[in-house]
Amino acid sequence: MTNRTVFFISDQTGVTAETLGHSLLTQFDAQEFRQLTVPFVDSIDKAKQAVDEVNAKAASEELKPLVFSTLVQDDVREVVRNDCECLVIDFFDAFLGPLEQELGVQSSHTSGRAHGMADLQSYDQRIDATNFAMANDDGVNTQHYDKADVILLGVSRSGKTPTCLYLALNYGVYAANYPLSEEELEAAAVPKALLHHRTKLYGLTIAPERLAEIRKERRAVGRYASPQQVSFEVRAAEALFKRHGIPYVDTTRFSIEEIASTILNVTGVERRLR
Amino acid sequence: MTNRTVFFISDQTGVTAETLGHSLLTQFDAQEFRQLTVPFVDSIDKAKQAVDEVNAKAASEELKPLVFSTLVQDDVREVVRNDCECLVIDFFDAFLGPLEQELGVQSSHTSGRAHGMADLQSYDQRIDATNFAMANDDGVNTQHYDKADVILLGVSRSGKTPTCLYLALNYGVYAANYPLSEEELEAAAVPKALLHHRTKLYGLTIAPERLAEIRKERRAVGRYASPQQVSFEVRAAEALFKRHGIPYVDTTRFSIEEIASTILNVTGVERRLR
Repeated sequence: MTNRTVFFISDQTGVTAETLGHSLLTQFDAQEFRQLTVPFVDSIDKAKQAVDEVNAKAASEELKPLVFSTLVQDDVREVVRNDCECLVIDFFDAFLGPLEQELGVQSSHTSGRAHGMADLQSYDQRIDATNFAMANDDGVNTQHYDKADVILLGVSRSGKTPTCLYLALNYGVYAANYPLSEEELEAAAVPKALLHHRTKLYGLTIAPERLAEIRKERRAVGRYASPQQVSFEVRAAEALFKRHGIPYVDTTRFSIEEIASTILNVTGVERRLR
Repeated sequence: MTNRTVFFISDQTGVTAETLGHSLLTQFDAQEFRQLTVPFVDSIDKAKQAVDEVNAKAASEELKPLVFSTLVQDDVREVVRNDCECLVIDFFDAFLGPLEQELGVQSSHTSGRAHGMADLQSYDQRIDATNFAMANDDGVNTQHYDKADVILLGVSRSGKTPTCLYLALNYGVYAANYPLSEEELEAAAVPKALLHHRTKLYGLTIAPERLAEIRKERRAVGRYASPQQVSFEVRAAEALFKRHGIPYVDTTRFSIEEIASTILNVTGVERRLR
């Protein structure tokens, strides 16, 4: 299949243009796209360079490129919109007008706001939450659970660590995690270190076949990834969650974004970043 | 100031709707918004519940709410668009039409694609990269640098760890980091463990005043956060980067997104996720 080139042009990092562009492109899943990000386009000169890049592809490739842009300065956006020889979807262009009308004010039309000019407090919050997630990973520390917003519980490789880090980095949420040991699974009791934090517990589970695959990558031989062992652990963990009324989610078909969002939604834990 | 309530309504996690809404709202920075995410709205019934929530705010609050939505199913979107008593900005509504026309195909109009239905390979990639970042944090391991895409270099608390984790979680990039010790700073030589990986090095620096603040949070007393010490370390690190032609970025006014994006942009390291 012939690939179509997609450009994400931004006066910032390109994160927003990519996120929005991906959402749209996933609706066209039979197509293949080659994706290029052109960040920090914040002057007319840089806009012209970006347009040259786009038009070179338009001239040399069979399929016309697509441009997704997030450009807030009117003059910069004009250049991209008018001079690209292909479809340009600018996210600000479409929505700032209706919003200005509804809010009854002009927008600032200045770049450098979306992610940055580092809101220092928010930066500190993310860093602190990330340090907390690192320091309280895998049950190594249990004495700081008072500070935790949520404590994830699950068997080894059920997705606890990346979910905690994602919650910290993206939402400034303090997330610890605790791996259920074989003894704890057999006892089917809430581990002692967690007894005072029952309301913060949230379980992760996963289909045994999937878990066996993941564990095999890590340690191919021995009991760790064996079907019997994996199946015992998963069943015991789910039984423990049910018995003690601990809410839990099956991560098998979920992305990290979805797991994190589900946890916030179910627990009502407040995001510290917006 | 009176707050206006903003709803992010999504048939998925709400991440895309929030990204879109935040980008737009930052253009109206004199306004205050109270933000509510309503995720997993994937049926007409759930859409009606969400509309009820919106209209309750419309009736009880002084300022009309705003709705940002990412709803791909036509019937679900119709409910939200037609029944909310306020401005509804639906992302797919605006852009799917022009894209269908340009690509010459109908979009799938099915939810559950944007972040999930877990592309398993991509999930594995993120997890593996995250494990790599954790295992190769803070110079604890130097024997796996062959596998690294990039090795961040900098003084303590210059932002190395969160940047590595962000690169892993969001781009599937293998990022290690190495803290420059006082001896290494004094010697102004590339640390021995890094000599074979010169092309992978990328430096982080930060304004001394800002670094002193950050360090004070961590350890208020002693030399660690003192102006002299911090200033010596930062100057020595920058001199080392310059002397050995190591590209670097000043993280002082940057968000983690911006630092990560800058690194990918400058080094040309390929993202493994899209």
